[in-house]
Amino acid sequence: MSKPGLPQGTRDFGPQTVYKRNFIFQTIRSVFELYGYEPLETPAMENLDTLLGKYGEEGDKLIFKILNNGLDHESKKDSARAAFENILAGKNDKVITERALRYDLTIPFARYVATHFHELSFPFRRYQLQPVWRADRPQKGRYREFYQCDADVVGSKSTMNEVELTQIYLTVFEKLGIDVELRINHRKILEGLAVSCGGTEYTVPITMAIDKLDKIGTEKVKLELQEKGLDEKQVKLIEKYLLIHGSNAEKIQQLTDILPNAAVQSGLQDLRYVLSFFENDNSNINHHPGNIVLDFSLARGLNYYTGIIFEVRAKGISIGSIGGGGRYDDLTGLFGVPGIPGVGISFGVDRIYDVMDELNLFPPTVQKSTQVLFFNLGEEAAIRCFDLMQELRRAEIRCELYHEHARFDKQFKYAEKKNIPRVIIIGDDELRSGIAKIKDLRSGVHTEVPFGDLIRLFNAESLKPKA
Amino acid sequence: MSKPGLPQGTRDFGPQTVYKRNFIFQTIRSVFELYGYEPLETPAMENLDTLLGKYGEEGDKLIFKILNNGLDHESKKDSARAAFENILAGKNDKVITERALRYDLTIPFARYVATHFHELSFPFRRYQLQPVWRADRPQKGRYREFYQCDADVVGSKSTMNEVELTQIYLTVFEKLGIDVELRINHRKILEGLAVSCGGTEYTVPITMAIDKLDKIGTEKVKLELQEKGLDEKQVKLIEKYLLIHGSNAEKIQQLTDILPNAAVQSGLQDLRYVLSFFENDNSNINHHPGNIVLDFSLARGLNYYTGIIFEVRAKGISIGSIGGGGRYDDLTGLFGVPGIPGVGISFGVDRIYDVMDELNLFPPTVQKSTQVLFFNLGEEAAIRCFDLMQELRRAEIRCELYHEHARFDKQFKYAEKKNIPRVIIIGDDELRSGIAKIKDLRSGVHTEVPFGDLIRLFNAESLKPKA
Repeated sequence: MSKPGLPQGTRDFGPQTVYKRNFIFQTIRSVFELYGYEPLETPAMENLDTLLGKYGEEGDKLIFKILNNGLDHESKKDSARAAFENILAGKNDKVITERALRYDLTIPFARYVATHFHELSFPFRRYQLQPVWRADRPQKGRYREFYQCDADVVGSKSTMNEVELTQIYLTVFEKLGIDVELRINHRKILEGLAVSCGGTEYTVPITMAIDKLDKIGTEKVKLELQEKGLDEKQVKLIEKYLLIHGSNAEKIQQLTDILPNAAVQSGLQDLRYVLSFFENDNSNINHHPGNIVLDFSLARGLNYYTGIIFEVRAKGISIGSIGGGGRYDDLTGLFGVPGIPGVGISFGVDRIYDVMDELNLFPPTVQKSTQVLFFNLGEEAAIRCFDLMQELRRAEIRCELYHEHARFDKQFKYAEKKNIPRVIIIGDDELRSGIAKIKDLRSGVHTEVPFGDLIRLFNAESLKPKA
Repeated sequence: MSKPGLPQGTRDFGPQTVYKRNFIFQTIRSVFELYGYEPLETPAMENLDTLLGKYGEEGDKLIFKILNNGLDHESKKDSARAAFENILAGKNDKVITERALRYDLTIPFARYVATHFHELSFPFRRYQLQPVWRADRPQKGRYREFYQCDADVVGSKSTMNEVELTQIYLTVFEKLGIDVELRINHRKILEGLAVSCGGTEYTVPITMAIDKLDKIGTEKVKLELQEKGLDEKQVKLIEKYLLIHGSNAEKIQQLTDILPNAAVQSGLQDLRYVLSFFENDNSNINHHPGNIVLDFSLARGLNYYTGIIFEVRAKGISIGSIGGGGRYDDLTGLFGVPGIPGVGISFGVDRIYDVMDELNLFPPTVQKSTQVLFFNLGEEAAIRCFDLMQELRRAEIRCELYHEHARFDKQFKYAEKKNIPRVIIIGDDELRSGIAKIKDLRSGVHTEVPFGDLIRLFNAESLKPKA
């Protein structure tokens, strides 16, 4: 058999990549937990019924479905015939597939909340960091298996939640060392724009067109609006809206001038509330206020958001959004439990990885390779090395013994290839003297250390300031 | 729509379960890393070709296959007809499914090693901790989605690897607080038994029968051996073999007496080597030697093992094996890269969870709930609380503000339901005095602490010795 490949759009993660990804995951998790968000994990498989119809027609097509058992290549003739006949007879809808892979983390969360409604205490804060699967056409930066990372609080209408989620975004990206711009807007403001254009029936076409602004530019947005039946006056108003600019305060002033209606005022009230926590001279908020930018052209697609919406972009690198979210009125209505509002944010962890890798932002300490290789100079020495290694390991020092008695150059090469910074050489002479030879492969420096002092050598190193 | 369920054999993990599971995962990971094992992650989906034929006929049937795109309920009539016609015409094998969910971690590892053979440095040590999927009939303790946790070293024949893997097993279970019995045997000894019965052609039937000993008992094993064509004398020899008992040294003596052949001696040599590291009076190995038990009736099914085999059982609880593994000659031959020997062990993390839960072995510190709830007594106080919380969070203290101004009893109830041990009450009086009221919900004790001293209160607590 020839060497096997991987399915399109999927990836292996080797050790160094896993360490780096875990650094991102662990940073986000620890911040979530500081704010009272708790972990939830749901299975990769959901019942197909749970997922279908939740992501629009296009989404349904991108759900990976799992073949019912028995319907495989082994018994394919019989099962294909049976499936075909059943379907023609209209006898069984579920003859081919009843299960599917999770497409996002929101619907499984909604299913969980609906099912456990009576056991949960509200507001319920959860975070979830798991892979999802989409049968999208793979391309650079778009995979068929990728991680999502969501935090949601449900059962609360308080805008304090938006304040805290904003704070979570800024804290995480500060800890990761990524300079970001957090854009915020409010669905009520887009609704207010539609109202000033003649009525809420314009909300969907206007939102859809504005959502494409980044991709197609103002002129094509205007064209699309005309095609959707908006007249010159309406398009002019929208153009004026899109040209709003300046500081956050200037933008608010311009918006109020252009769209003096109640929906806009209601949206602005929430936005002002959130901004108030970050724009005053509060010494406890040490993030630069410039990081939070009102962006009235932010639309976040045609999803279920009803209030404040968020989007995060990394400064100085063109990679699209690395986070997004917003407030919704009804998480679980589709599952028979109406009236649970909430707000959530998401981290685009695959893109965050790409940004950090490209900008060289991973601290060197993230790479947890073996700290020292013990050379193997024969059975007797190896047994003594094994004992010494047990002492080091009890002191949490990562070490290895070369697996067999071999030439020095072979053992050096292994250490170099595995990026092990130090080797310890214990042969017959060292066994007699009780003093180990140590070579630092980074500096090339040789030292000699009595067996009993080996731990101290590493402990001294781990006390040095970390990057 | 009614409340949706979960697919049979799958589970949600709520916060407290995730924390406990992560404690197990993190303990195992950290020990692996102390021994130079590095993390690998492979995608949930593999090409069906990669998996088929690797797990026997029964295994193939239990692989979850993924429906090719387009072959879903949306277009089911057309696609079912097309699939059926193609299959009848023998035109296309892959018309229904080309991808499947990972069934274990060994085959994806073998695929990885075969693909990256020229980039890896050998011996290559990896660990992998990821879910796998099997279309098994769900029952107590058996799930369709469950985690596996493997460590393997490939490209080395040194028995020192077995010594270290034994040490890893004992260290992990010591850290988890589970009292275990580690059973070891050697495939060469089973082969030696077959040789003494007349030839290696008896190895498979004898191994298969002995593998069932725990389940069906000696008499039924003898019956099965007879049915497989072994005569009275042969069965008698096997019975004598199964009756070997006593200390490890006594067992070795009895075995040598019963089966004086070269295969047995070769197996015993490896076993004696491993035992020698744990049975001498070595102060660095602080595990009780009784934990390692030679068990010549250990067979580990009909898999690819060729050398030492391991199995771990928890003492004092009847739940089957919680770990197993062994040495193999050829990991990647099936993928076109022959001659890579190795040895690996596996942790049954779902069962380990059950053991720890039943025996109450999780340290209380595993539960990382919010440490303090700030009561919400109105807008002005809430804003001050938000500032104080930012200070606490910077000191890594997990805190929450109740989401809205509400009655005391409502806020107390939330804290109790969420197991938050402390509440901080800051209203108009406290804003004026700068002194917060604190209630410890575990002891019922009230205290008063100036705003500036809040962090110290928690830091003092975190310095207390942990369970």
